[in-house]
Amino acid sequence: MSDTHDVIVIGAGPAGEVAAQRAREGGLSVAVVESRLVGGECSYFACIPTKAVLRPIHAVRAAQRLQGVTGATLDVAGVLARRESWVSSRDDAGQADWLAGADIELVRGRARLSGEREVTVDDRVLTARQAVVVATGTRASIPDIPGLRDAGPWTNVEATSTDTVPPRLVVLGGGVVACELAQIFGALGSQVIMVVRGDRVLGRLDDIASDAVLAALRADGIDVRLGATATAVDRDGDTVTVTMDGGERVTGDEVLCALGRTPNSDDLGLAEQGVDLGDPPDWLYAVGDVSGRVALTHMGKYQARACGDLVVARAAGEVDPADLERYGRFSDAAIDTATPQVIFTDPEVAAVGPTFAEAKESGRNVRAVEVPLPAAAGAALQADGYTGTARLLVDVDTEVIIGATFVGQDSAELVHAATIAIVGEVPLSRLWHAVPSFPTMSEVWLRLLEEYGL
Amino acid sequence: MSDTHDVIVIGAGPAGEVAAQRAREGGLSVAVVESRLVGGECSYFACIPTKAVLRPIHAVRAAQRLQGVTGATLDVAGVLARRESWVSSRDDAGQADWLAGADIELVRGRARLSGEREVTVDDRVLTARQAVVVATGTRASIPDIPGLRDAGPWTNVEATSTDTVPPRLVVLGGGVVACELAQIFGALGSQVIMVVRGDRVLGRLDDIASDAVLAALRADGIDVRLGATATAVDRDGDTVTVTMDGGERVTGDEVLCALGRTPNSDDLGLAEQGVDLGDPPDWLYAVGDVSGRVALTHMGKYQARACGDLVVARAAGEVDPADLERYGRFSDAAIDTATPQVIFTDPEVAAVGPTFAEAKESGRNVRAVEVPLPAAAGAALQADGYTGTARLLVDVDTEVIIGATFVGQDSAELVHAATIAIVGEVPLSRLWHAVPSFPTMSEVWLRLLEEYGL
Repeated sequence: MSDTHDVIVIGAGPAGEVAAQRAREGGLSVAVVESRLVGGECSYFACIPTKAVLRPIHAVRAAQRLQGVTGATLDVAGVLARRESWVSSRDDAGQADWLAGADIELVRGRARLSGEREVTVDDRVLTARQAVVVATGTRASIPDIPGLRDAGPWTNVEATSTDTVPPRLVVLGGGVVACELAQIFGALGSQVIMVVRGDRVLGRLDDIASDAVLAALRADGIDVRLGATATAVDRDGDTVTVTMDGGERVTGDEVLCALGRTPNSDDLGLAEQGVDLGDPPDWLYAVGDVSGRVALTHMGKYQARACGDLVVARAAGEVDPADLERYGRFSDAAIDTATPQVIFTDPEVAAVGPTFAEAKESGRNVRAVEVPLPAAAGAALQADGYTGTARLLVDVDTEVIIGATFVGQDSAELVHAATIAIVGEVPLSRLWHAVPSFPTMSEVWLRLLEEYGL
Repeated sequence: MSDTHDVIVIGAGPAGEVAAQRAREGGLSVAVVESRLVGGECSYFACIPTKAVLRPIHAVRAAQRLQGVTGATLDVAGVLARRESWVSSRDDAGQADWLAGADIELVRGRARLSGEREVTVDDRVLTARQAVVVATGTRASIPDIPGLRDAGPWTNVEATSTDTVPPRLVVLGGGVVACELAQIFGALGSQVIMVVRGDRVLGRLDDIASDAVLAALRADGIDVRLGATATAVDRDGDTVTVTMDGGERVTGDEVLCALGRTPNSDDLGLAEQGVDLGDPPDWLYAVGDVSGRVALTHMGKYQARACGDLVVARAAGEVDPADLERYGRFSDAAIDTATPQVIFTDPEVAAVGPTFAEAKESGRNVRAVEVPLPAAAGAALQADGYTGTARLLVDVDTEVIIGATFVGQDSAELVHAATIAIVGEVPLSRLWHAVPSFPTMSEVWLRLLEEYGL
């Protein structure tokens, strides 16, 4: 096979795959280099296995909350088997076949930039006529807490591939990964303790999400310690002890480190070649989590699509400047205006745009409009005793929505309507004519508009 | 209490309540006349009791479709108790209290128009300074099939208030009411036979919905006879026999008549007063199902809000003509452009706008874009072996969506995003920037846009 391609993509996670696919569909030849599993962290160690496990947990809880349903029980072995099926037992043959079917060359090995438009994989030198796209993702950070590395900490990788459920699990962190995995292991039977540095969980989300998820974790029996920093970790045989800044200690059989992510850009030869992903030369692109702009599979794919199409257009010398403008074909402006995120805890959190605090800080004239989700009959019908909240952020000057947060069981699918309203810049007066069906949960939109007072 | 009000609303169902509420909030005095239950057919005999029963049925099925969940079973007595709780055992005190709290006078009794702006309720004569709003809804039609009336047929009223589950139920009809109730009684333990005149069920919906729901009803063990017209009904003690046009007979313990609806406008004195709801004088309005425009609670409420606000503006002599234009404050244009409907069968159907057949007949240059719902990982994760379909209708000349149909488990909340895209007239090129979260079901939007080929 040729060692010269139009485009070389480093990293075969979702963003790398999409960039490669769009470039190939645009007629360019493409090689993708992957040192681990084709499909990336998301497919094997993050989104997919966690959701494969969370779905039966949610279904059992949903059933248990309804008069008229009896007997629903979680089968832990079945849950783990479901996960294994979804990750193909961490075999990437299916994903590699997809690349082959798309006529994209897969090069297995560790890639390093070795020159302009040149990538070396082991002893093979690949040359790109047009572009090199870096899509190497991130890995779990292991901070320099004394004893942590030696304690054999779990990261998302171990937590999503374990065959056994530890009787006691200490989770370091309070973000999305920490909350989802804490709730998973709690449901599977672990006694879980969370050591959270901040004064709330899900600190990057709106406070209505933090408050509800914290209460739910505690109602699940999870021991959540807020404002607690791990200062030392010691493993003694089967037991791990975590010491916190107040001197207090907690113990577990395993310790899960969910303290942020580190971009996989330190071993690519970037510095040696004098390039910087934050300000790359015109032949180099960064997409997905490694780009540092946003660490979400769907936004990585969005960014990668724009990137792949732009590489194709530049190769053809046909770049219409309008396509580079906000919401043009090659724009990834939605990263800044309308990044959605769903946290699959119970209650679910589905949010898009800035938090209320961020929106106020930006200097915009923003009003938060909030109603209980069960104000919509459709939510109240969904579960007996349903609780939840919907909050819209409205730019008062334009009467356009700029953000939304939905918190509650089965709220995940509510947010896309808000994303469309934000990106489409549909004013509230027009949204009155977008009538939600009775009795669906989406009817909370009607309550939100009423609450705004139009 | 005064017998003169600014506004008299006849009918205290959802549409009447909203018209009354908006008029009252606009500062007008309002009386509502109701001969049966405050809250209307929807609250006691339609949407609410059916959804209260369908939700546990759906939750059990969702649980049974997941590896990792065991034991979920329907408890029929619990299901019926849940229904009774949701309909307050058909006691409307709570809804009457709501009217009182909103400072709206409730007049119980049967209303007849007795003059211009004059309504007689039993022996009381009510006069409206501004407007009379007719919101009397519809009732189940009982066609002139020989023997049907004498057979004591069930309508939605009996089917949603029964304490017992008939061992054998014959359903006449194949529309929404027929399909939902057939599936309910099948799940509760009845042997159900459906006698459907047309060649498909849900004949007013897109064929992808009809096909999927028909297959599901049959997979449930329901005996669906298509192209079958009941020509005679005979009750002999506990058994009802329905004879079909081919001479074939089916028997049941009860027969449910779901053969359309009749507007409750025949006993209002309209003809005697020389008025026609289709072309009413300027002081008379019709909202909700009785208006004949669309028979859905949410669209009735939408229409009623515009009506109530218009009555207020006219009373003040302050009608801005722009507010009467399409998507203006007093417009109910979405009835024609973006009426959504959710059918809570399993699979659910969520649709908005015209069907593909209707759109083509209208002469528009329309393209249907279709993908399997499990093409989105979020749907495939929702249930093992998930099946379903999403279809968008795109006006090719403007590249704007004009319709959408989603068919599949838990698809109800997917349609509101489409409704906003239609009403907001958000072009497909902009919708690319409305990124759905991975892995939610909403990611089917990405697949639909890819399929369109942008």
